[in-house]
Amino acid sequence: MMIIVVRPDATEAQIQHILDRVQELGFTPHYSRGEQRTIIGAIGDETKVTAESLAAISGVEQVLPILKPFKLASRELKREDTVVQVGHVNIGGGSLAMIAGPCAVESYERLDAIAGRVRTAGANILRGGAFKPRTSPYSFQGLGVEGLRILREVGSNYGMPVVTEVMDPRQVGIVVEFADMLQIGARNMQNFDLLREVGQAPRPVLLKRAMSATVKDLLMSAEYILAAGNPNVVLCERGERSFEDSTRNMLDLSAVPNVKGQSHLPIIVDPSHATGRPDLIPDMAKASVAAGADGVHVEVHDCPEKALSDGPQALLPDNFDKLMKDIRKLVSAVGKQIG
Amino acid sequence: MMIIVVRPDATEAQIQHILDRVQELGFTPHYSRGEQRTIIGAIGDETKVTAESLAAISGVEQVLPILKPFKLASRELKREDTVVQVGHVNIGGGSLAMIAGPCAVESYERLDAIAGRVRTAGANILRGGAFKPRTSPYSFQGLGVEGLRILREVGSNYGMPVVTEVMDPRQVGIVVEFADMLQIGARNMQNFDLLREVGQAPRPVLLKRAMSATVKDLLMSAEYILAAGNPNVVLCERGERSFEDSTRNMLDLSAVPNVKGQSHLPIIVDPSHATGRPDLIPDMAKASVAAGADGVHVEVHDCPEKALSDGPQALLPDNFDKLMKDIRKLVSAVGKQIG
Amino acid sequence: MMIIVVRPDATEAQIQHILDRVQELGFTPHYSRGEQRTIIGAIGDETKVTAESLAAISGVEQVLPILKPFKLASRELKREDTVVQVGHVNIGGGSLAMIAGPCAVESYERLDAIAGRVRTAGANILRGGAFKPRTSPYSFQGLGVEGLRILREVGSNYGMPVVTEVMDPRQVGIVVEFADMLQIGARNMQNFDLLREVGQAPRPVLLKRAMSATVKDLLMSAEYILAAGNPNVVLCERGERSFEDSTRNMLDLSAVPNVKGQSHLPIIVDPSHATGRPDLIPDMAKASVAAGADGVHVEVHDCPEKALSDGPQALLPDNFDKLMKDIRKLVSAVGKQIG
Amino acid sequence: MMIIVVRPDATEAQIQHILDRVQELGFTPHYSRGEQRTIIGAIGDETKVTAESLAAISGVEQVLPILKPFKLASRELKREDTVVQVGHVNIGGGSLAMIAGPCAVESYERLDAIAGRVRTAGANILRGGAFKPRTSPYSFQGLGVEGLRILREVGSNYGMPVVTEVMDPRQVGIVVEFADMLQIGARNMQNFDLLREVGQAPRPVLLKRAMSATVKDLLMSAEYILAAGNPNVVLCERGERSFEDSTRNMLDLSAVPNVKGQSHLPIIVDPSHATGRPDLIPDMAKASVAAGADGVHVEVHDCPEKALSDGPQALLPDNFDKLMKDIRKLVSAVGKQIG
Repeated sequence: MMIIVVRPDATEAQIQHILDRVQELGFTPHYSRGEQRTIIGAIGDETKVTAESLAAISGVEQVLPILKPFKLASRELKREDTVVQVGHVNIGGGSLAMIAGPCAVESYERLDAIAGRVRTAGANILRGGAFKPRTSPYSFQGLGVEGLRILREVGSNYGMPVVTEVMDPRQVGIVVEFADMLQIGARNMQNFDLLREVGQAPRPVLLKRAMSATVKDLLMSAEYILAAGNPNVVLCERGERSFEDSTRNMLDLSAVPNVKGQSHLPIIVDPSHATGRPDLIPDMAKASVAAGADGVHVEVHDCPEKALSDGPQALLPDNFDKLMKDIRKLVSAVGKQIG
Repeated sequence: MMIIVVRPDATEAQIQHILDRVQELGFTPHYSRGEQRTIIGAIGDETKVTAESLAAISGVEQVLPILKPFKLASRELKREDTVVQVGHVNIGGGSLAMIAGPCAVESYERLDAIAGRVRTAGANILRGGAFKPRTSPYSFQGLGVEGLRILREVGSNYGMPVVTEVMDPRQVGIVVEFADMLQIGARNMQNFDLLREVGQAPRPVLLKRAMSATVKDLLMSAEYILAAGNPNVVLCERGERSFEDSTRNMLDLSAVPNVKGQSHLPIIVDPSHATGRPDLIPDMAKASVAAGADGVHVEVHDCPEKALSDGPQALLPDNFDKLMKDIRKLVSAVGKQIG
Repeated sequence: MMIIVVRPDATEAQIQHILDRVQELGFTPHYSRGEQRTIIGAIGDETKVTAESLAAISGVEQVLPILKPFKLASRELKREDTVVQVGHVNIGGGSLAMIAGPCAVESYERLDAIAGRVRTAGANILRGGAFKPRTSPYSFQGLGVEGLRILREVGSNYGMPVVTEVMDPRQVGIVVEFADMLQIGARNMQNFDLLREVGQAPRPVLLKRAMSATVKDLLMSAEYILAAGNPNVVLCERGERSFEDSTRNMLDLSAVPNVKGQSHLPIIVDPSHATGRPDLIPDMAKASVAAGADGVHVEVHDCPEKALSDGPQALLPDNFDKLMKDIRKLVSAVGKQIG
Repeated sequence: MMIIVVRPDATEAQIQHILDRVQELGFTPHYSRGEQRTIIGAIGDETKVTAESLAAISGVEQVLPILKPFKLASRELKREDTVVQVGHVNIGGGSLAMIAGPCAVESYERLDAIAGRVRTAGANILRGGAFKPRTSPYSFQGLGVEGLRILREVGSNYGMPVVTEVMDPRQVGIVVEFADMLQIGARNMQNFDLLREVGQAPRPVLLKRAMSATVKDLLMSAEYILAAGNPNVVLCERGERSFEDSTRNMLDLSAVPNVKGQSHLPIIVDPSHATGRPDLIPDMAKASVAAGADGVHVEVHDCPEKALSDGPQALLPDNFDKLMKDIRKLVSAVGKQIG
């Protein structure tokens, strides 16, 4: 059902034309004339016609869609929480993902050292970028396939499933060979060809919210993946562009219960990219757990000043260790467990 | 100290004029010529000269201030946390304020009923608006002095200190007679005459962040109050304007540790105005406690559909009761107590 | 008329209660049951009941108001453009205000020098601040009444009406004595007590848009002034807070035709505060005229580096002179005249 | 040169380590100790080291980069305006592109009808989407290669060069066969693999600003294309995400002179996507010309209510015709010509 508000100066002929168009599009019109405005309810299958085709009719002031534009991602379709399995780790339904690792895979030795520390501290999934989306063409762009190989080997040594970003539809095949989970970065959330491609891949997907995407936009991008056949999508809030200039982004933590009300998909939080500040990351990670997130995603590096990417936002292993201790207290206070 | 970056096309005469001006303003210039840019460090008392007076000199590309523009509010001036006392309740330093009540004082009976419920649930400060800032001149504007009288009486009956908003410098005198704490609403955060007025009042002040104020702006407004002589300021994050259209505002929870790193003042969170949605308020209240906030501020109404203001964002007393139970678990997990 | 969307899981009893409440509030309910949603149109005087009182009813998913919440400011009430007269200058209806002058009145000599230059260049209204809203309590706060006196005298000498900001309801009386137009600054756009006060003053009002106010918010604030009895309101777009960090604010120039479609009030543009950059101000001033604005508001200073406030964003008199020449060409290309 | 601000509590050992690191990275340190802060200027080739590797050193408070991070796109590298040739049409250096056409290519007949109208009105480049980025997987996704074929044929018939969007690196080859200019849409502005691919294509590129990209981000994305070998880049401002809910986006028109100050590349404006409202598009197109844009990009459709995509934001051919008449007056007032 959609609500069509008619302009106050619309002629009778225009109103008649609107009614005709509504029927032509397969809807049943439902007419209400008020003192100051006339409205027409268009009853029918809203997923077949977009609001914009009605809004473009002459004499229409605005069209108010009543239903949400996503279906497969919606809580109305599926009441119970989806649990996504990544290797042996469950995400959702009371099980939390603790994803940690460096921004980029830099070398076997470095990743091995970091993975050992985060594993001991209690992380259950290892992250590390092999293909890096950098704002400058002159910055380090990642080790590519060699990075994937290192990530796989280190992950297997420590018994940790691994997640890594895929930026180009042409990379999906090779990343699937090495990774347990495919990450779609914020800058590619509306790279629809890439979404379709990972929607056909046999791996769960970690879909990060773009830096000024609404919650509805995020769910529409998840819908692309689901519609392509891949039911294993985990969403990730990672901070939104804002006027605040003392943090890299503004963490929209209310997205966690907001998504959970509308969708059955799990959602985790990345306080590292959201704040860009190690002094704020631990408190935001704790707040995420208290807000009901299905996990957190934290960048950790043992020597931030020599990191090839995003060093200043990485936690030191000791600080990550302390954070995990604090998180465990909260996890039991909210009645969940680490996945 | 300020850093002056000189334009690449500046003449020697312009550079000499910049150096002269820097000295004239009481700074010692410190000159560094790089291959692509020349910079001049201006060493001296940065609080006496604004960056803008240097930026306006011909030949200057930009001026980068190094120090923060607030002093009395800064953590550098005072290392230990400020604890603000409101009646018998402490806010800050490990003690949490649980402020609850209706958006507006509507009648003695209604407030009495609500106050009884929130007191029992564990709230320690009662809120209620007597002077209401409404976007429409045709909306209910509050009961005024009669509202103050009711608030005072109900608060005293339940042994709860009371906080209420003051909108106009001319109201400060009368509000001081009835309230234990004066609230400056988000829309008045930069009403500087009002800030000066409450800065001279013998009551603690609850200063809400404006809907697109940076953390620095918020601390500068606190500085106005402190500079006028009132050291008892509690800050409040209440959501920022954003592109997200499914919540009233975007709650910037990272402002909590962000403020605490820079300032000794306590900061609480208002998830009611931040989200405008009762389904999101409890999770955001819990997240606030986990993030280190010194309290939460929640609107509660026993019959939201008959509320004269902001009904849809109020929690029902039963839901507030449940929230307080959840919060108590978190409060002990983070090692604090309710003030 | 308002549209009430019922939750898909609402019970029959809840729906009945909604229908009862709608009638109780004086509306006629109009019921449409769709396959996936039920909606109820509430036909009646929408200005008597806010959407929020309906939204708070149990079982309601959302309420969509159909009418705009402002009346006196609306184009529907008054079709023809309002022309506001400031001294002998007309603003609106094809007549443009060219408001220029320094940010703050600093001294008689300085203002006299600047006023002479802008008058010769073609400005028709003189601006200058006597009461200054400064983010820092340590910055220059304006000359106060002495500043008003200087502004009045210089304006009269050059035959220019004068506009100056009023920040506090208690200042309105004195500012009325000296100024031809009262300015409400962006930070006070929702200082409702101040709006009511200038709404009772015998002077036209220049109302600046707050830094994250929607166009609707701006028109609601104008409605406060109109409802208090003052029909002479000129709106001003002056830039919005945004993520863009290379300009002070983001100029929302589309607000000009957007306001003009909805309201009969004139609207001018202030590119000085909007951009904060003299290199961008002239192009934005010209764009404003091409976009249909009823005037521009530009800060001019003859020695920006010695300005006591906002020096870096002031145009030099020579640059203002050049700008006025360019504007005159555009004014005739769009078929208007300088007021 | 970069400026490193040292934390006030940094130890002598930390400061020494910073100095050592700066030298290790190939910079010459330049030390200034102030009363309240110590700063270290790092003089050297800033393009070789990112600010973040310095910011991650222990004891560093912040790092202020002095130079812009783009080179090939910068005005410092190339003083004169770049003129990009698309078929026989020049964009930049006083020549304006008037790009018009439907959102999507829908059929030969429809495109032919629209192209005839916009050609007659004075447009000099034809646009039309064959691959469409749609937020919903259920919306019309474009005609694909068949759409390219139609666009090419209609463009050739009317003697108009054609521009169309490319969304996937794998499509670049086929689009190059049919189009005179490749468009990168806002959602792909930071799809770096795609940027590299069009950077190697033998066609000029129209690069649209992402919906919350800063001007610097936009220029960094242009830098990717330039660095890959393609010097023919035209930028496009198309509106930014904001809190304003009455327009689709907020047009940041100041980006036009802002870009022109920093870069030699041409920049045009798309008021159709920026506002989403036909009632605002003409005024914003005119303002763009007055602001100094090198062209405008307007969607035109002869039957918006039957458009398969974005109907409500299209101008009718008659309105486009009127707009072109108004624009011609402004073009001569600003001393330029239509390319």
